[in-house]
Order: sequence, then structure tokens, then C-alpha cells
Amino acid sequence: MTKYVYLFKEGNAGMKDLLGGKGANLAEMTGLGLPVPRGFTVTTEACTRYYKDGRIIADDIVAQIEKALEATEEMVGKKLGDQANPFLVSVRSGAKVSMPGMMDTVLNLGLNDTVVEGLAKLTGNPRFAYDSYRRFVQMFSDVVMGIEKSKFERLLDNMKEEKGVHIDTELTADDMKEVLRKFKALYKKEKGEDFPQDPKKQLMESIKAVFRSWDNERAIIYRRLNDIPGDIGTAVNIQEMVYGNMGEDSGTGVAFTRNPSTGEKKLMGEFLMNAQGEDVVAGIRTPQEIDKLKETNPAVYAQFMEIAEKLESHYHDMQDIEFTIEKGKLFMLQTRNGKRTANAALKIAVDLVREGVLTKEEAIMKVDPRQLDALLHPTFAPSMLKDARPIASGLPASPGAATGQVYFTADDAANAFEDGVRNIILVRLETSPEDIEGMHVSQGILTARGGMTSHAAVVARGMGTCCVSGCGELKINEEEKFFTVGGHRFEEGSWISLDGSTGKVYGSKLPTIDPEVTGDFAEFISWADEIRTLKVRTNADTPQDSATAVKFGAEGIGLCRTEHMFFEADRIRAFRKMILAETLEQREAALAEIEPLQRKDFEAIFKVMKGFPVTIRFLDPPLHEFLPKEKEDIEELAAEMKIPVSQLEAKISDLHEQNPMLGHRGCRLAVTYPEIAIMQTKAVIKAALNVNKEGDTVVPEIMIPLVGDLVEFKYVKNLVVTTADEMIAASGDDLKYMVGTMIEIPRAALTADEIATEAEFFSFGTNDLTQMTYGLSRDDAGKFLDDYYAKKIYESDPFARLDRKGVGSLVKTAVRLGRETRPEIKLGICGEHGGDPSSIEFCYQAGLNYVSCSPYRVPIARLAAAQSVIKNR
Amino acid sequence: MTKYVYLFKEGNAGMKDLLGGKGANLAEMTGLGLPVPRGFTVTTEACTRYYKDGRIIADDIVAQIEKALEATEEMVGKKLGDQANPFLVSVRSGAKVSMPGMMDTVLNLGLNDTVVEGLAKLTGNPRFAYDSYRRFVQMFSDVVMGIEKSKFERLLDNMKEEKGVHIDTELTADDMKEVLRKFKALYKKEKGEDFPQDPKKQLMESIKAVFRSWDNERAIIYRRLNDIPGDIGTAVNIQEMVYGNMGEDSGTGVAFTRNPSTGEKKLMGEFLMNAQGEDVVAGIRTPQEIDKLKETNPAVYAQFMEIAEKLESHYHDMQDIEFTIEKGKLFMLQTRNGKRTANAALKIAVDLVREGVLTKEEAIMKVDPRQLDALLHPTFAPSMLKDARPIASGLPASPGAATGQVYFTADDAANAFEDGVRNIILVRLETSPEDIEGMHVSQGILTARGGMTSHAAVVARGMGTCCVSGCGELKINEEEKFFTVGGHRFEEGSWISLDGSTGKVYGSKLPTIDPEVTGDFAEFISWADEIRTLKVRTNADTPQDSATAVKFGAEGIGLCRTEHMFFEADRIRAFRKMILAETLEQREAALAEIEPLQRKDFEAIFKVMKGFPVTIRFLDPPLHEFLPKEKEDIEELAAEMKIPVSQLEAKISDLHEQNPMLGHRGCRLAVTYPEIAIMQTKAVIKAALNVNKEGDTVVPEIMIPLVGDLVEFKYVKNLVVTTADEMIAASGDDLKYMVGTMIEIPRAALTADEIATEAEFFSFGTNDLTQMTYGLSRDDAGKFLDDYYAKKIYESDPFARLDRKGVGSLVKTAVRLGRETRPEIKLGICGEHGGDPSSIEFCYQAGLNYVSCSPYRVPIARLAAAQSVIKNR
Repeated sequence: MTKYVYLFKEGNAGMKDLLGGKGANLAEMTGLGLPVPRGFTVTTEACTRYYKDGRIIADDIVAQIEKALEATEEMVGKKLGDQANPFLVSVRSGAKVSMPGMMDTVLNLGLNDTVVEGLAKLTGNPRFAYDSYRRFVQMFSDVVMGIEKSKFERLLDNMKEEKGVHIDTELTADDMKEVLRKFKALYKKEKGEDFPQDPKKQLMESIKAVFRSWDNERAIIYRRLNDIPGDIGTAVNIQEMVYGNMGEDSGTGVAFTRNPSTGEKKLMGEFLMNAQGEDVVAGIRTPQEIDKLKETNPAVYAQFMEIAEKLESHYHDMQDIEFTIEKGKLFMLQTRNGKRTANAALKIAVDLVREGVLTKEEAIMKVDPRQLDALLHPTFAPSMLKDARPIASGLPASPGAATGQVYFTADDAANAFEDGVRNIILVRLETSPEDIEGMHVSQGILTARGGMTSHAAVVARGMGTCCVSGCGELKINEEEKFFTVGGHRFEEGSWISLDGSTGKVYGSKLPTIDPEVTGDFAEFISWADEIRTLKVRTNADTPQDSATAVKFGAEGIGLCRTEHMFFEADRIRAFRKMILAETLEQREAALAEIEPLQRKDFEAIFKVMKGFPVTIRFLDPPLHEFLPKEKEDIEELAAEMKIPVSQLEAKISDLHEQNPMLGHRGCRLAVTYPEIAIMQTKAVIKAALNVNKEGDTVVPEIMIPLVGDLVEFKYVKNLVVTTADEMIAASGDDLKYMVGTMIEIPRAALTADEIATEAEFFSFGTNDLTQMTYGLSRDDAGKFLDDYYAKKIYESDPFARLDRKGVGSLVKTAVRLGRETRPEIKLGICGEHGGDPSSIEFCYQAGLNYVSCSPYRVPIARLAAAQSVIKNR
Repeated sequence: MTKYVYLFKEGNAGMKDLLGGKGANLAEMTGLGLPVPRGFTVTTEACTRYYKDGRIIADDIVAQIEKALEATEEMVGKKLGDQANPFLVSVRSGAKVSMPGMMDTVLNLGLNDTVVEGLAKLTGNPRFAYDSYRRFVQMFSDVVMGIEKSKFERLLDNMKEEKGVHIDTELTADDMKEVLRKFKALYKKEKGEDFPQDPKKQLMESIKAVFRSWDNERAIIYRRLNDIPGDIGTAVNIQEMVYGNMGEDSGTGVAFTRNPSTGEKKLMGEFLMNAQGEDVVAGIRTPQEIDKLKETNPAVYAQFMEIAEKLESHYHDMQDIEFTIEKGKLFMLQTRNGKRTANAALKIAVDLVREGVLTKEEAIMKVDPRQLDALLHPTFAPSMLKDARPIASGLPASPGAATGQVYFTADDAANAFEDGVRNIILVRLETSPEDIEGMHVSQGILTARGGMTSHAAVVARGMGTCCVSGCGELKINEEEKFFTVGGHRFEEGSWISLDGSTGKVYGSKLPTIDPEVTGDFAEFISWADEIRTLKVRTNADTPQDSATAVKFGAEGIGLCRTEHMFFEADRIRAFRKMILAETLEQREAALAEIEPLQRKDFEAIFKVMKGFPVTIRFLDPPLHEFLPKEKEDIEELAAEMKIPVSQLEAKISDLHEQNPMLGHRGCRLAVTYPEIAIMQTKAVIKAALNVNKEGDTVVPEIMIPLVGDLVEFKYVKNLVVTTADEMIAASGDDLKYMVGTMIEIPRAALTADEIATEAEFFSFGTNDLTQMTYGLSRDDAGKFLDDYYAKKIYESDPFARLDRKGVGSLVKTAVRLGRETRPEIKLGICGEHGGDPSSIEFCYQAGLNYVSCSPYRVPIARLAAAQSVIKNR
């Protein structure tokens, strides 16, 4: 028979999957002989069984719970419901991964109308007894029965008003009795029955409530944001109550074994005498620093210090400890690895290695790669945020903090920059490729529409610019240049601040702090480099981005998008001429204008990336993206191009597509207009020849996008090779180059064995591959994916975290087929997923050679790549 | 060593792959002892080797050709280039599958300045000799050297003018000598060298030219349109020349062993004395009926009759025979299975079974399923088409013929129909779902934009309505209600005619003939039913379509799209109210109005489909398709709905999608608006309960579209099952129903094992599956797929013929995974491919249970399904 219930003394810290983090650590501490209030844990398997059985606790589990309860009662020497010697318990959730505050807790369980009197007599403190009972009624009613907490609070407030007092503690035992009467009457009114008096029923219902709370909305959202699977369930801990509010020799507190903000090796914590955990949270009294305990209660302090040190060295990590002192006796209520800032995480990891507590590899596993993000972007000073109230909240699309004056069009932003404005926030309904210049000069980008992978979000992350997207509360009037939110109106030039790490928008100027990379960081990440086998490249389109990435440790460019090279002011005109050309000759003439400019771009990038491989993706977006959409802009362009407006409009209408994502783009453009691919080949090869003349050894990797078929790839490759070989022969110099393809269309993955006969490398474009495998448009999914999260259909955003089941199976198929044909084929990933730790682990498992991500995610990828090696041994 | 060259006497009819159709049949006739001019065949493998070697004929092949030439010279007793006894040959292409007129031919090869004199002497006919030589110069220059034929024709015309004569035969031998001189001078001017005098060089260059012609543009297009692979190459036949123009005892002709129009068992053919094949084609003299030969040359006639009978019984099929009589001696130049009309094909097949020549299974293999199409739609009388000149040409999107008056909007068409107009052609830039009513009342649909799978094409095929799409030559002004083409203007009400089988558009009224299904057809197709194992269902949305399909032999509905049920006038208003609703209650109220109307639709369909399964697909298109796009229509709707225009515009803008194909549609709508799926469930279940009360046994199959994930499917299935089970229980009756899904998203195929845990059937939606697997929008691909065909990247339209490599591999994966989980799972296909013979064969191989296609393709599918069984034994 499956064992669903474990006494604390039966478990240990290794059983987190089964007992949850809290339960496993309570068991471990019990095993260490620490003073832990006794109890038992109902396992996570009982929780999943609860859901499987249709939300009931099966009889065999009930029996095991009752047996564990009896065993605990025996240890404690008290009995649940025994008026003479009552046993009171807490019922707490505890999942494998900590989800603080997300699930439910019931305290003081076991009280009823008779037990309360026994407790009053036993403690000699009737006020305490009735207060505990009314707290229990309130908590049980709220958590288990779904009666709104506020209704109880109102009754309590009324009583205080009636009695002319301000805080709860001023109410007498009789007052509390009266409050209790009212609470029970409210319960009866709401539920049509008396408050349950049977402590076992109270217990079972509370356990069910904790199970249910696994699936409440905030828990689901928390799991999605923190990559926690939805099917692992929570354990439930039933534990003897201890009281920190039984007088001045009682108290409660929390402590960290090291400073969680800085990592400094010094116990840090606070406590409050004659109080319960709730009171600390309520903030009515100010807690004292933990050092003070030494003065007031040196024995307990010494005992606590000893335990804290024992726990840290036992767990090999900084601990976050909760404790209670009941009438001078210390009880440990919880220990866990403490949450910490990114800086502290690095310092603690490095210190623990220096102290000989951790090996380098163990240290590597202690830092969450996603945390490093915070180290790589400006932030707001925490002190500044104290008083700042957000005016709105959107999606945390690109991390960092920005403060600046708002502008509503890319042109206005660019003009303001030319006029010397240096703190600019671009505010748009949504951005488009035309906005690129305005985005470049901005410190932050705020959009009303679009998700985490909208144009604004993707481009901002690529540039390392702070971005908040999908901020639907904003009512933006781009025409008249203002936005309103919550009744306030912000004109062009108003100051606002964005926190791209939280999605919060502030209506004022907030100072930012520049990122600091300490020596610990460099040392720590060098350990990761020793371990990892995946190379880390970057997605960079400019020499600036490339230089940033190299600074952060990039070992090459995995994706250099060339479309931005067409958008810059000095070439967009020529490219539009090419689009509007009627003949091949006109097209070639227009392209000839662009070629030397692109060549210079490539030369600059090759110089920065000296010695590292550079993968250049040929033109990808559909041509209509290069033409204006608004009437006014169309008229302006027509005038500039000296053609009738109607002709330009006809061309725009001709290029219009129903589903541009599935339209005339990528290598399909090269099939229709071979001259574009030829021009780009010339620019790349000439640049490489020029730079190599100066002593470098650039080996450009030309990447053909959106390939779905071998013959299609061959056609474009042939254009490249014919052009390149002729140029190289004419130059008299030697130049190696490679031609490969993106694998971003399902059919390319399915026919990778054929494509690999010609392609020298594959780069998985998992953004598009995800779109097509799911049949899901990134640009449109934001509108309905929330329904999918709310209804528990999707647990995570497939554009943020690679879907291993569907998209992943295509990647694996392509890896297998590709290597069958060409064992030495180079395999990488250049989608957004290349900077996501979970996706990086998948890439490692799938056997890729490298991941490529935005410059600001390179250190994250280095760490995640090292962790993948260790985790998958 | 590979044998690349076969003497006719070395081959046989079974060697078509290697010798091509013509070569294999010449060999077969040689083997039968028939009078075939002697010669040899260079194989198709030599052709593919020619391409592989970089367009040269390798030395070993040249040697084999020379050896075969010597052997042939020995048999004939003449030598190539021998003035005294010259050997002249024809060089003809001949692929495995006949591609009439697509590739090149050279006649009279072997003539040069000296041989021509020998020929003149030998025949005693200098005019004949010089005429043959100048024909050869012209043909060789054109076919082999690429000099425009018209330049030679101009020289010949000049000579006739100079001599004051009208036809070639009036020119004398000396005139021909002079023409020849001018021809050779032209050759020298164009090529910078003399006309080649070495007959062996003439021969090798001509063989190369035939190889090259395999890849000319018209051959590529022909192959694509006829599903012929592009890599099989052509053979080349080198054959002794025989002359039908050597006097009144010579002649040439063609004959069919049965009537190719009606199938009647009677030799039918025509001949011309003193003429060559070219002269018959030129049409200057009228050929005589073959019977006449009996009078003028009874011996030859008797010999020919005997041979014709021998060939038909030898080949077990109606033969198309070419012959030449040279000075009273009969020569057989070609025999092949004759092309025939659909009616003739059926009659011949049935007759041959009755005559005991064929088994039923052999007969089944003799009819091309695609040909049956012609039997199922109205056609133009061939006599009428003789004088009619098309004004434009588009894509043959939906077969049949239609004649009618043009209307430019769906509303105008509907109004005209109400006013009693019964012959309507709807002319649109492109159609949208809003046009459905206007399309229903039209005899034909003509669009300027869109491909073979555009909205217009798909809907028209579904309705069996003639449609020509993508007719870009048309300049349509929908606003002012006219179109122009080739300088002509057609106003509303003008008569035009469409041929949906050829894509031709005529500028006048042409009478049509209704389809006739003869007794032979019924008998023939019943044989197919005995053999096939695939069930054939239909895609039908209305009782009318369903009835048509049943008449054509459908065994159920594989796809009943419900969106059309929302578009009809009495419900679109309620559905728009639902879209514009602000609350769940408003939405439910609006849906409640639609429910009884949909129920009636289902009842009517269930009644027609008595006893057959009906698969109902729940709402699929995105909601914005149900709202108007044009300013005017928006204002009208706002007024009708009594809401501000701005509110309606805001909603439309809110629903706008970048890539609607990958957007908020299919089951995603049911996730956001469960009430829609619930309403549709109610309508289906209630209809089934009602119809079953009358004694039927309807088992509705509810199909959830666009599923990509098990949890997603489960969510919607749960809505359906909860609603349905409650209704069935309340009714007190018994009702079985199934819930299954479309497999149309790659991820669904890749996770089919999971989805099959809940889905009771899969229906492959290969339209969308192809779009997503290729990353290719059906609506947009038309603009650039022509480049793909022209550059030989794609050989066929993946939306017309299922891509076995990519899409097919996903289908096979889903079949395997689905059956692993649920061995009894029902598997079908409901994309456009379900009516395409090649795709049906794939479905058979993949192990599907049924195919579903438009009503008018049901007989085609029945035949194709039977052929699949026989072919794959």
C-alpha cells in the first residue's frame, strides 16, 4: 500500500518531491535533534490522488492521517479535542518548490466550544484562549469555507469601536467571547449550519482546503511565472501549535544566516516578543534586530546561533529560518535555503567555495541563472521605490529600469534626441520595424499592445533596452500626443519611469543605478565556463551590440539580422526604390547603392568579432514591411520618390498579405529576386576579404532563412556560392565561408536529412518554429493566451520556454536526421529561447553545439549551460 | 557497363521506364513482326546521366549510340552520309508518360550538301530532296541551335511572293534550292559558322537538344499540371525516315481502334495521300475518313485493319495509331493507348470487360479518376467553343461551365436572383465568407486574385459551382461595377461564360450541356466499390450538398462546417450581437437565438444522411470574419445594432489580427467563449434526439478544430460531454455520440498519442496542416509559387497534391501514435486533398479509414480508392 503520510521523524531533506520543501526540512531538523514542534506530513502524492479521485480524500489516506495523528498525540501527550489537555495544530501547505503566500494555512485547529474553555483553564489566560479560537474561526471560515475574511474583520472593528479601543490586544477576554459569538453567528448565517465542533472534521476539511489551494488562480500564475510544473501538487504539514504570544517570555522571529542583500557572512534577522507570526506581518509593532535577543535572552540566543550555524553547514547554503519562543523554550518552525539578491547569491556562492563548504560545481548549482539578469541592467534604487506608486502595470518585456520624457512617435523621439534630449521613453500602441531608429535613441519603450514576444519586446531585449509591453490600461492618443491612465494625463515631454523587470510604470522621474559587475561575478562565471560544453553566441546586428556581447563573454554571433541594415536612413530610400522597381535593371541599380553600405556594416562587425564565427542571416521580412502604412507617410514617400501616390498605393496593395508570417519572406524573396541574395553575398564576401587583408581570419557563415525544402535551399545556395567563388577567385586571396540554413519551418525539420546534404550548418529559429508548430501567431496570441493560463491549458508561454513535447521533438528529429547525413554539421539555436535556462538545458540534451541569445543574456546562458552539464550527468 | 542504347528489336512494352512510351511500343511492335521503320532508342537513364554530367553526353554513351547506328545501317542497308545510298533518320523524344507536343523532334536528319544530291538522284525527285533538306535545316536550326523559326518562314514567304505563288508545293526544285541557299546563309549569319555537314555531329547535337527539351518551360508546366515527376527524363528514338509524300501511292494517317469521343467499337481515323504528318497538322488539305482507304488501296487497308485489331487485343486497350504509306508499303510509326473522353473511357472499359478482354480490376486501372470530373459538371458544347475566343484566362479553380450575367457584389447577385435573374456570374477581386449568399445563387464565380485554394476556389468546389480564380488580366472596378480586359469593358448585366475546367473566360453567352451519368458509369463505379477498402465521405454543410453527395455515393459526412450556419441572413445579426456583447449574459442571449436555427440545419442534414455518420466541426474562423470591413458597411451595421460607429470600429480594431490563420480561431474560440461550444453542442444533440425519435439512428461525431494540445482538447471536450450527457439524461432517450478532433496543427500530429487518450477520432485537416508544415499561407502563396514552379523548386502545388515527405510524415506519425494509444481510433482526412487521387493513394497507404471530399469529387475518390488497393498489392 502506498504510504501517504509520514511522521516528521520518518522523513528527511532528500524527500522534497514527496514531502514538499517545508515538510522535508521539518523532518530533517527533527532528525538532527533540533527542537521542532511534532507533527506529520501528508504527501504530494496524496494531493495528486485527491485531484485524480475527483477532489476527495480517499478512505485509505484518511486512515493513514488518523494513524499519524494518534502517533503524534502520543508523542505530545495531548489529544485533539480533549478539553482537559487539548492538542492544537497548524495545517500548512508545502510544495516541492517554495511558493510563498500562494497557498493556504489554518492555525489553532482543534479548538471548539468546550476545548476553548479547557485551554483557558490550562493556560490561565482566557483572553488568549478566546482570541485563538476566534482567529481559528475566522481563518477556517475564510480558507476552508470561502467566507470573505473582510466580513469577520468588520465585526472585529465594530467591537473595537464599541469599546472605544484601537488595537486588538486592548480587547478583554469577555470582548473576545462576544466577538467569537458574532463570528459563529456570521458563520451560521453564511453556511446555514453551526461552526463545526468535531476537530477531526476540522482537520480533514482543512487538508482538503490546502489541496484545493494548489489550484487557486494566484498559485497558477505564480507557477507559470516561475516555471513550476502544475501537476506535482503540494504536501500538507500538520504540526503541534506553539505560541509566541503567551507573555513576555514568548516571541517569534525570522533570521538569515547571511545577509540576503549583500551576501555578507553575518547572521541577520529580527524578532518580536509576545507575538505571533501574523503580528510581525501586520507591522503594528516594530520588530527588533536579532542581536537584541542576546541581551534579553542570552540562553535562547546562544542556542539559536548554534542551531543556525549547524543548519547552514548541514545544508551547505545560507538558511532562512523561522522560530518561536514559547515561555522561554525555543522551537524551530522552518528552515530553507534563503532567497537573496543576485549580488548576494554570487558572493555567497563564491564565499562558500572559499570556505571549503562547496565545490565549484555545487556553487554553480546554487545560483538561478535568471537572477543574473538583474545584474546586467540599470535598476531603481530601492529607497526611491518606497514612496513611488505605479500608475499602471504591463508585461516585464525587457528588464532594467528607465526614466525619461515621453514621445509618441519614433520620429519625435529621434528629433528630440537630435535636439539634445537624452532621457527618452517611447510610448506607442505597438511598434513596427519602421520605429527602429526611435527605439534606438530611447532609454525605455512602453507599449499598450503586444505580448512578451511582440516586436517591441523582442527588439528591446535585443538592444538591452528596458521595455514594458501590453500595458492595456494606458489610453494612448498617438495623434494628439498624450496618454491617460487612472484619470491622469501625460503629454509629450512628461517624465515617467519604467521597470522592465516588474512591468511597473511610474508617473514621475526616478533615479536609476547603473549595473555593477563585481569581481565575484567574473570569478563565478569563469567556473561555469570550465564546465559547460555548449558554446554561447549572441544575436547582434550592430558593432555596438557585438561589442557588448563580447564583453559579456559571447563566443561568436549566432544571428546577425540584416534587415535592420536596410532600415537605416541612408539606405531605406534605395531599398524602397528596389521594391518599386519595374525591371531587373532598376532593381539591381538600387541594390548596388546599398551594397557598399552593408559591406561597411559587416566590416565593422567582423572587426569587433575578431576570431569568432559570425552567422549572417539574409533578408527575412516581407517587402511590405519596408513601405509606409499611413496615408500621410505614403504621400510623403511618393513625393520623395517622384511617383504618383496611386502608383505607390497600388504597389502597397499588391504587396499586402493576409498572413505575412506565412507569406513572401525569407528565402522566398531570394527565389523571386535572386539579385537581393547576390547583393548580400557580395557585401559579406567583400567585407570578409577586406578585413582578412588586415590579418584577421573571418569565416562568415551565410544563413538562408525560412527554408522548407532541399531544392529551395539549393537554389539560393547556388546563387551565393557562384557569386562568392567568383569574387574570391578574382581577389586572389583565400577565404573560407559556410552556407547553412535556419530550421524554422516544420517541414525543414522533417526533411533535415535531405537539407543537410547541402547545408553546412543548421540554426534552429525556434520563434518561428514554435509559431508554426503550434499554429500560433506571436503577434496575436497575447489576446487569448491569458485564457489558456487561467484555464490551466498552458502552464508556460511557449515563446518564452521551449515546448519540449512538440517543438522539441521536431528539433530532435532535425538533429538526428541532420547528423545522419552530415555527422560534422554545426547545430545551434538562435530563437528567443537561446537565452532561457530551461530551453538551454533542452538544447544541451538535444546535442546542439551552441546557443545564441541577446547580448544581455550571454552570462545567463553561460551559467545555464554549465548547470545543464551538471544536472544531466 | 550500363546499357544506354537499345535496338527496337531488343526492347518490349514492359520497358517504358527505360525506353519511354514511344520507344517501348516501337520495340513491342517490332517484336510482333509489324512493319516498323528500323531504329533504336537512347534510354531515359542516358537523359538523367546527361544532366548529372553537366549537360554533356558521356563518351561511353556516344560509343553505344554509334554502335547501334551501325547495326541499324546494316539492317537497312544504307549509311548515314552515304551519297549513293543515304540513310535518313528522325530523332524524336519519348518520355515514360506521353507529353504530346511538349518536347522536340528533328526530321530528315542525315542530309547535307552532297547527300541531298544523292537523294535527288535516287528518288528521281529533286524537288522532294531539296524540300526535305530545307525542312531539315529549318528544324535543326530552330530545335537544336535556337534560331527563331519565324526567320526561316519569312524567307520562304518572300520566295513565294517573289514567285507569285501561294503554297509551298507550287515552288519548283530550283526555287527550293534558292530557299535552301538563303536558309544556310541565315544560319551562318546567326551562328558565325556553316551549317554542319557531318551527319554524326547533326545526330549527336539533335539528341542533346531532345534531352534539353525535357527541361523547357512548357514541359515543366505540363508535368506540374499532369502530376509527372521531373526527374525521370526522356528517351530519344532514332528511326529510319519513311515518306508519305513520295507520290499518290504514298500517304500518312492516324487512327483510333474505337471512337475516342463515344467509346463506340468502330475503327475511326483519317489519312491524307501524298503528305507528311506536318501537312496533316497544317490543315491545308482536308484528310479523308479511314474507310476511304478501302476503296483506294484495299490491300493496305486490309493489312492496317488486321494490325489495328492485333494491337488492341495485344495491349488490351483502345489504341491510337500513326502510320505512313511509302510507295504502297505500310509502316507503323507509333501506337499507344488512346486518349479519350470520360464517357468513352467508361464505355471502353465496360465493353472490354464484357468482351472478356479485361478483368474488372484491369478495367478499373484504365480510367484516370481525374477524368470523371468532366462527367459531373455542365460543359460547353464543343461545337460552340470552335468560334469562341477567350477574353482572358485564369486558374481552373472549380470545374464545369457556366454562362450568365455579371454582378460585382454578393448583395447585387442576391438581389438579381430575387428579381428573377437565373444566370448569374459573380465577379469579385476576391471573395470572403460574407459573400457566401451571393456565391450560392451564382452559376459561376470569377475572381481576379487568389489561387487554387483561395476562398472562392474552395467554397466553389464545395458547392460544385464553376469557378475561375486568379484571373489577373481583369481590371475590376467593384465600386463602379465594371471590369475591363483587353480593351473591352463589361458592365453589370453583361453576359460572359466561364470554363472552370480550363480557366478560360469568354465574353459572350455560350450554351452549356448538363452532365449525363450513363448506365456504364454506374456499373463501372460499382466495381470500384467492390475493391476499395477506404470509405468515401463528403464535405457538405447543407442538406442540398449532402443530398448531392449521397447521390454520388458518399457514405457519410466527413466535414460539416458550421460557420456557414452563422452567416445566413437570419442569424448573422444574432451572431454579431454575440461578438459585440460586453457580458457573458448578453453573449448567451444572442447565442440562444441562433441555437434553434442551427438545430434545424442539423436536423435537415441528419435526415438526408439517414444511417450515415456525420462529422460536425465546431466554429472555426476568427470572429473578425463575421464583421464588415468597409466603412459603409460598418456604418450600416452600427445603425442596425443601434451602437455608435466608434464602438463598432473599436471592436473591429480590437479583433484585428496580424496573422489570422495563426490567430484566435478554432478551439481557441471555445476556450475564450465556452458558451459558443455549449450552444453548438445543444443544437447538435437536440437535433439528433429529435431525428432519432422518428426512427433514425444518427450518431453525431463532434469535431473540435485547431487542437494542438491534449489539455486544450480535454477542456473543450469536457464542455461538450457535460452539456450533451445532461441533455441526453433529461430526454430519457438513448443517444450515442463521439467527440474527436481535427489534426491540422503540426503539434497535434506530434503529440497524437496524448490527444488520442481523449479523442475518439482524428480527421486530418491537410489544408491547414500543409500551411503550417510549410509555413505557407494559401491566400498569399499564389503570388510567388509561380517562381517556384518556373525555377523547378516545386513540382506540384502542395495544397492540391499532398506532400508525402513533410506533411505526409506528420500524418503517418499521427496515425502511428494515435493507434498506439487507441487501436480502434477512426481516422480520416477532410482537407482538399481528400478528392485528389494521388493524395487518396497516400491516405490508403497511411492506413486511414476514410477520405472526405466535396460532393462532386465523391465518384473520383471511389475510383481512386479502388486503384490504390490494386496498385499497392
